[in-house]
Amino acid sequence: MSVDPGSDLLAPLTGSIAEVREAVRAAQRQGKRVGFVPTMGALHAGHASLIAAARRECDLVVVSIFVNPTQFAPHEDLAKYPRPLEADRRVCRQAGADLVFVPRVEDIYPAGFTTYVTVEGLSSILEGVARPTHFRGVTTVVLKLFQMVPADIAYFGQKDYQQQTIIRKMVADLNLPITIRVCPTIRETDGLAMSSRNVYLDSAQRQVSLALFRTLELARTELARGERNLPALRQRLRACLGSDPAVQPDYATLVDPDTLAELDTPGPRVVALVAARVGTTRLIDNAVIDLR
Amino acid sequence: MSVDPGSDLLAPLTGSIAEVREAVRAAQRQGKRVGFVPTMGALHAGHASLIAAARRECDLVVVSIFVNPTQFAPHEDLAKYPRPLEADRRVCRQAGADLVFVPRVEDIYPAGFTTYVTVEGLSSILEGVARPTHFRGVTTVVLKLFQMVPADIAYFGQKDYQQQTIIRKMVADLNLPITIRVCPTIRETDGLAMSSRNVYLDSAQRQVSLALFRTLELARTELARGERNLPALRQRLRACLGSDPAVQPDYATLVDPDTLAELDTPGPRVVALVAARVGTTRLIDNAVIDLR
Repeated sequence: MSVDPGSDLLAPLTGSIAEVREAVRAAQRQGKRVGFVPTMGALHAGHASLIAAARRECDLVVVSIFVNPTQFAPHEDLAKYPRPLEADRRVCRQAGADLVFVPRVEDIYPAGFTTYVTVEGLSSILEGVARPTHFRGVTTVVLKLFQMVPADIAYFGQKDYQQQTIIRKMVADLNLPITIRVCPTIRETDGLAMSSRNVYLDSAQRQVSLALFRTLELARTELARGERNLPALRQRLRACLGSDPAVQPDYATLVDPDTLAELDTPGPRVVALVAARVGTTRLIDNAVIDLR
Repeated sequence: MSVDPGSDLLAPLTGSIAEVREAVRAAQRQGKRVGFVPTMGALHAGHASLIAAARRECDLVVVSIFVNPTQFAPHEDLAKYPRPLEADRRVCRQAGADLVFVPRVEDIYPAGFTTYVTVEGLSSILEGVARPTHFRGVTTVVLKLFQMVPADIAYFGQKDYQQQTIIRKMVADLNLPITIRVCPTIRETDGLAMSSRNVYLDSAQRQVSLALFRTLELARTELARGERNLPALRQRLRACLGSDPAVQPDYATLVDPDTLAELDTPGPRVVALVAARVGTTRLIDNAVIDLR
């Protein structure tokens, strides 16, 4: 684990979980507000926007970088997930982080680890169908990180819509004393949502991946035009997502913003959620559409 | 919920979870050490000993009283579990508590609650066989209480040996910033372990309930005499526990103090665990036996 205080973000200092916790608490004892951005590294402009949001609102900004094994299934991309640590430290520094916390796997999951936090229901739908143990891994590690970095505010991206919904539910259900801020998805100029997994795409795949954004735009346009027959619209979204044979759609749906239940008639806000595979890379995206 | 600050322990003040948390944090900001005794009420000398231990070691002592529905199965005694709130407040005061936190069920489990903390493995053996959802309910509520009452030290009784083992495992696995103290079982003069459920026993049942303590004494005596064949000793313990037809033994076993795995040959310490039903009342007890 390394804890980099102050401007010395590139120094490979090592420290303990107790040290990072104490750094947070010392700041809080001085009346400072602490912001926390938990990440899996491979930082892009989306992560930088979270760090910048924390910088604007908080006195001490902590970023964690930890590729969390428990949220990967055995067949998934844990081994090849990008880990560009030095580049990540530079992103942290440039975006305004004060402290980068890089725990080791054996510190987070010592031998004999058996305790899990599960948000039932929400964790087994949508992404949870394709990835049944994924969100249990996410909620477990996020709860652990919140204990190690007992910040006042934590920042998550809207890009992982179901993830932030589940984390907000966990925080509410377990009375965790932290505020969750959800920040807008950051996109490439052509609309593709920034994702650490975009590096897996070759140029042809990168091109067809726009199907996800196009599908969300279709949802937005049709709802703006007055379409209220959501089952019919859902069918059109699925067709749009699957229109290129190089894209294997997983789902394209319209759901309630909080319960993620499929909607047949819209409430004041509708969330369009899409997921597809392009080659071996799984991509997700979403749009929160306000109908008021 | 009621929060009773200072000596005004009997006043039915109402407050919020945020208020009790702030009372704890305010004390900590002044450099005070906060002790926490989570209970289900129906307080007896065992609970009083936990409160007294907290009083000796801490500057602010918080007791919670909450009969936690998620640790009862539908057929169990949730409805009839004793709730002598005024007597409990007196026990708290006499034992030295500063603050009694009595949350309402709807504050702890609002509609739509779906998040659970599970210590896998340890929660499904021994008590977990007879009570498969019990420990999930315990770990979930204890984690929640630790977020509401972010104390420095929490006190549990050795009487619920498996429970304290599981809570210590949860605290370690989830990096919860709290120290767990386990205090000795308090017994009636004839050896029966104090339990809130002892009030269910009529006088004949009260008499035969001594089988649990006698079985633990047999384990202690035989191990002190040099018995090292634990499978054979286990058989004798089961026979002892079931020697009165009014006692239905559930288990009588010898386990590792941390993993609770059944031992065939002793390590430096052995824990004897017993569970039985007397009438409709389920009783448990244990002895930690040091062989060094």
